[in-house]
Amino acid sequence: MKIAIVGAGALGLYYGAVLQKGGHNVHFLLRRDYDAIMNNGLTVHSINGDFYLPSVAGHKTASTVGAVELVIVGLKTFANNSLNELIKPLLGAETTILTLQNGLGNEELLAELFGAERIIGGVAFLCSNRGEPGHVHHLAAGRIIIGEYQLCDKERLERIVSDFTAAGIDCRSTGDLKKTRWEKLVWNIPFNGLCALLQQPVERLLSAPQCRRLVRDLMIEVITAANMQGLSQAIPEKFADGMLEFSDGMGAYKPSMQIDRKEGRELEIQAIFRVPLEYGSRQMVAMPRTEMLAALLEQL
Amino acid sequence: MKIAIVGAGALGLYYGAVLQKGGHNVHFLLRRDYDAIMNNGLTVHSINGDFYLPSVAGHKTASTVGAVELVIVGLKTFANNSLNELIKPLLGAETTILTLQNGLGNEELLAELFGAERIIGGVAFLCSNRGEPGHVHHLAAGRIIIGEYQLCDKERLERIVSDFTAAGIDCRSTGDLKKTRWEKLVWNIPFNGLCALLQQPVERLLSAPQCRRLVRDLMIEVITAANMQGLSQAIPEKFADGMLEFSDGMGAYKPSMQIDRKEGRELEIQAIFRVPLEYGSRQMVAMPRTEMLAALLEQL
Repeated sequence: MKIAIVGAGALGLYYGAVLQKGGHNVHFLLRRDYDAIMNNGLTVHSINGDFYLPSVAGHKTASTVGAVELVIVGLKTFANNSLNELIKPLLGAETTILTLQNGLGNEELLAELFGAERIIGGVAFLCSNRGEPGHVHHLAAGRIIIGEYQLCDKERLERIVSDFTAAGIDCRSTGDLKKTRWEKLVWNIPFNGLCALLQQPVERLLSAPQCRRLVRDLMIEVITAANMQGLSQAIPEKFADGMLEFSDGMGAYKPSMQIDRKEGRELEIQAIFRVPLEYGSRQMVAMPRTEMLAALLEQL
Repeated sequence: MKIAIVGAGALGLYYGAVLQKGGHNVHFLLRRDYDAIMNNGLTVHSINGDFYLPSVAGHKTASTVGAVELVIVGLKTFANNSLNELIKPLLGAETTILTLQNGLGNEELLAELFGAERIIGGVAFLCSNRGEPGHVHHLAAGRIIIGEYQLCDKERLERIVSDFTAAGIDCRSTGDLKKTRWEKLVWNIPFNGLCALLQQPVERLLSAPQCRRLVRDLMIEVITAANMQGLSQAIPEKFADGMLEFSDGMGAYKPSMQIDRKEGRELEIQAIFRVPLEYGSRQMVAMPRTEMLAALLEQL
């Protein structure tokens, strides 16, 4: 399959490299890492085994890639206003667009730009960071859950799942993308927000009882708002406890927003906080802690 | 009047100096500023006019002061476990103890140690900082409101008010010290907490609409909890708006907790947050934002 990676941060580089290793024809749109990768290839340091790709199809603009079968979007959501320019040259009649970006609102925007029938959304439970140019670190987890934005083509979805699985990615499909997105927010809202605000990794938050309680209170707010969005099935409160246990295994992991702040980048407050808060507010769900965390992050 | 100042930070130095200038016999318990003040006196830089006290009765321990008529306590509340040692040597049969410390719980502790009948409490609306040793800066406001802890001796209270007023302090009495303390918390909880957390002065918080709203939401939580404590009169919601306007005049003022954090001191989380939260919780008042702010400060 000819695949383009748009937004080659840690997530895009990692999944793109695994797919290339699995035999796909992968093209990366690169900025920071272009020179390093074109000269020296791409090195993946992974808990599943390191590997090295000596030859990578890197591009500075989408126009040299041409039409592809699958576009994987890993762009930071604060750069979403470049999506049109980045993706348009990659589209053929049958191109599918899979966004693995954070938060809410990305499928909606892509559907508006390129047509709802092309769009698949997904969430990645991946702990990864970029290293020096040409290196990416896969630290923990890695599962992707993907779903049709409009339930257009279930067969296409399962074909991607099996292609990804064959390439070595832990990939599942969901029949309720909205629920899957909100379940991811149950993690993203407390951990991206608090780790970025306090500049502390996951384990620091979880080891202090009153902060662990705050994390859980935030999770419950998100679950309560999620369950008012017409999901196929309610998310139970105990999902928060499972998520806490899952996070206990992450050690000193720094979520993307913490790294974004440390490196002076913009924060993904709109997609991870403001859009979910807007959906909560439309259903009259009080989310005082989530709202407070958003306001504090905006104030930084 | 023979007066001892216990806890000669910005507040203790400022009020002590004004009282000495007004003719009182003031003794200061000093640590950081002892050498500077004994050698070079105490300089007050005040919006009401600078003045200089060439000769100040400084002490390193309370035992050299002897019994006084009035003890003014300005100690940081996290040092409250030294109150017994610091105050005991200052007590005669008729000594009154006035605590101007932050938060809740100070009168209770002093009453337990030295007898409720001695205790007067007060809140100071004073913007002041210590400068280099021997210098104190009075930046804005300055009013003290004092009240009997147990309504023991209203005449004594009014005598202190008139002594302070004659010395040039803007001093009023209150018949409901509890209400006055909670009213002060309506300021202290949002501003001490948020300025310390974000390391931003008052005007930065107030100029961002979503942060200004958060400040107000915190104020309303405090007012709601206050009004369940059996006050003589309810604090109206519009008190929050008045407090916001009052704070608009403070400019780049840094509250004490922000300075404590910057200078690596402990924070007064117990007195300003945890005791009020405990009183709120006893009356079943939900204070999610206040609770969250306390947890975040404890996490720093």
